[in-house]
Amino acid sequence: MEKKITILPGDGIGPEVVAAAVRVLQAIGKRYKHEFHLAYAAIGGAAIDQFNTPLPEETIETCSQSDAILLGAVGGPKWDNNPPELRPEKGLLQIRKTFDLFANLRPVKSFPSLLDSSPLKREVADNVDLLIVRELTGGIYFGEKKRTESAASDLNIYTREEIERIVDNAFELAKLRRGRLCSVDKANVLETSRLWREIVEEKKAQYPEVEVEHNLVDSVAMKLITNPSHYDVIVTDNMFGDILSDEASVITGSLGVLPSASIRGDSFGLYEPVHGSAPEIAGLGIANPAATILSVAMMLRYSFGMKEEAAEIERAVNAVFEDGYFTRDLAKDKDSALTTDEWTDKVIAEIDTNFVADSIMESYI
Amino acid sequence: MEKKITILPGDGIGPEVVAAAVRVLQAIGKRYKHEFHLAYAAIGGAAIDQFNTPLPEETIETCSQSDAILLGAVGGPKWDNNPPELRPEKGLLQIRKTFDLFANLRPVKSFPSLLDSSPLKREVADNVDLLIVRELTGGIYFGEKKRTESAASDLNIYTREEIERIVDNAFELAKLRRGRLCSVDKANVLETSRLWREIVEEKKAQYPEVEVEHNLVDSVAMKLITNPSHYDVIVTDNMFGDILSDEASVITGSLGVLPSASIRGDSFGLYEPVHGSAPEIAGLGIANPAATILSVAMMLRYSFGMKEEAAEIERAVNAVFEDGYFTRDLAKDKDSALTTDEWTDKVIAEIDTNFVADSIMESYI
Ligand SMILES: [Mg+2]
Ligand SMILES: [Mg+2]
Repeated sequence: MEKKITILPGDGIGPEVVAAAVRVLQAIGKRYKHEFHLAYAAIGGAAIDQFNTPLPEETIETCSQSDAILLGAVGGPKWDNNPPELRPEKGLLQIRKTFDLFANLRPVKSFPSLLDSSPLKREVADNVDLLIVRELTGGIYFGEKKRTESAASDLNIYTREEIERIVDNAFELAKLRRGRLCSVDKANVLETSRLWREIVEEKKAQYPEVEVEHNLVDSVAMKLITNPSHYDVIVTDNMFGDILSDEASVITGSLGVLPSASIRGDSFGLYEPVHGSAPEIAGLGIANPAATILSVAMMLRYSFGMKEEAAEIERAVNAVFEDGYFTRDLAKDKDSALTTDEWTDKVIAEIDTNFVADSIMESYI
Repeated sequence: MEKKITILPGDGIGPEVVAAAVRVLQAIGKRYKHEFHLAYAAIGGAAIDQFNTPLPEETIETCSQSDAILLGAVGGPKWDNNPPELRPEKGLLQIRKTFDLFANLRPVKSFPSLLDSSPLKREVADNVDLLIVRELTGGIYFGEKKRTESAASDLNIYTREEIERIVDNAFELAKLRRGRLCSVDKANVLETSRLWREIVEEKKAQYPEVEVEHNLVDSVAMKLITNPSHYDVIVTDNMFGDILSDEASVITGSLGVLPSASIRGDSFGLYEPVHGSAPEIAGLGIANPAATILSVAMMLRYSFGMKEEAAEIERAVNAVFEDGYFTRDLAKDKDSALTTDEWTDKVIAEIDTNFVADSIMESYI
């Protein structure tokens, strides 16, 4: 296959982790005989410095000519006192809006070799493999805001259409996974939640292979910690998704291994690590590239339909952890920590070795 | 001191755990020479069965003549198909509204002897002693709800006054504790949160002994799990408080040990365990009364200013756990589990023994 990808390195450790992930992407391309054409563009603080805007027209143009976007991270102290329109984060909000990326995918999968870093007991965090699907462009974060002398308000509003498209998305994702969908709302008090629940119930018939449960947000906030392995796909609105996906991110013991995607229902999407730009370690070559590498795996799976390739990256990352190789953030013995590049080399070597092993097997068949 | 307390046993295990807590209350009264006058009244399903309403006028009347209310639990399958106005839970909502109980206090304190039951690692859950102060009568749960053919909405609205009174309350509570207050909002996107944050900043000057931090709700959802011992008092709005207090409730490893209070700024308040009516074990005499007993301790502290008495109940409960006595829900060896009454006897014996020891000490001085 041939695919065009826009690379947005961004700020802080963004360029470093993106460079590492691109190397893994190219290794996969070579092994599976795909051609990935890369176009680099500016976003965030880097774009402000160069173009005086966090999302230049050229970047939008480049992205619209691509099949997917890989982003590093945006932001840093340098731009913290900028006016709202000149904040790096604005670039991220604008790109999601420009391309109508309404579904935020936040998978949480525990790596056995990292369970010591989890705040949860080993037996609780083990075998967690869940995917939170968060509505990203509607709800209370975007509803009308009002302020008077004596009060303030925010309108939580959802149209039927907005809910239908995210719910469809979540059902499709559940089909690709273990076939279980938990819809999260607060239907005992919120009208938006009651509409949400009705729509999930209506859609159920179209996806007979998916098992559906409804759960209240406060109850899920508990169960995500007491029994996270219960969940497969969780679908919820913008605000609940914001809270629950951040809560769930602590399960694995490290933000450094969490990828994410923002998609829109067709194959186009933006892929980025959950962690931020970590300006304090930028340029040192010690950042953990795992989350960005795993974001590339998500891109392959969701945007390009390359399931085997995606699984191979995930297998390789896990194997490198299992072999006891970690970057500084996860290494118990800091002296043995690998640099960003060294750790990426291990992942690529793992992919190559596996490929050679496969080829030898094949030549015997 | 002389105090009048209305006892609302309610449904399921409510009557059993309330009876146990009343015994502890009377033991404390005897030891510290207080007179507690009790008046029993109906609420929830029990009130529906007897008076055809979940909150009879007589109950309101009795409560208004008291200094505080102790409630067991409401609800059960018997009333699950009742119309909204005849649901047991409605009684609880109405009593909070009738008495304007706008502040919900949810303390979470870990007991060393229960840490095995926590989903968190021992070192994470140990030494947690936090108090969530949730605004209970405003915000999105009570704002205007709308539904059209194609959309639904909920209005999140707070007046300055509503925020001021809960924030004052939280500052006062922080003064009584370790002097640290974390105000939780989503000020980067919500107008109600920006007003909330402004008010906390305004109030700060009145409470120079309290150290204040502001935190975003999604970030607190993470930190409550990664570093719960960081927190002293947390104050937040109705919805965030709902989610965070339920999330925090998993830290101790058991809902069976979590008390709560709903107060209004003067000394009047309603005290109840966090757990529900557990109809499946009602009448068996095996329910864990710890949460209700600890709710009595909260009543003594917050409504009656009896700090020493409250601390004595908490000390006794902890001592009984430390001695290895548990009810069925917490006992590792179910055969050695104590009944509700047996476990309560241990708590009372602990209080009595301590009192005798104190008296002997005093007679030597
Ligand atoms: Mg967030
Ligand atoms: Mg709740």
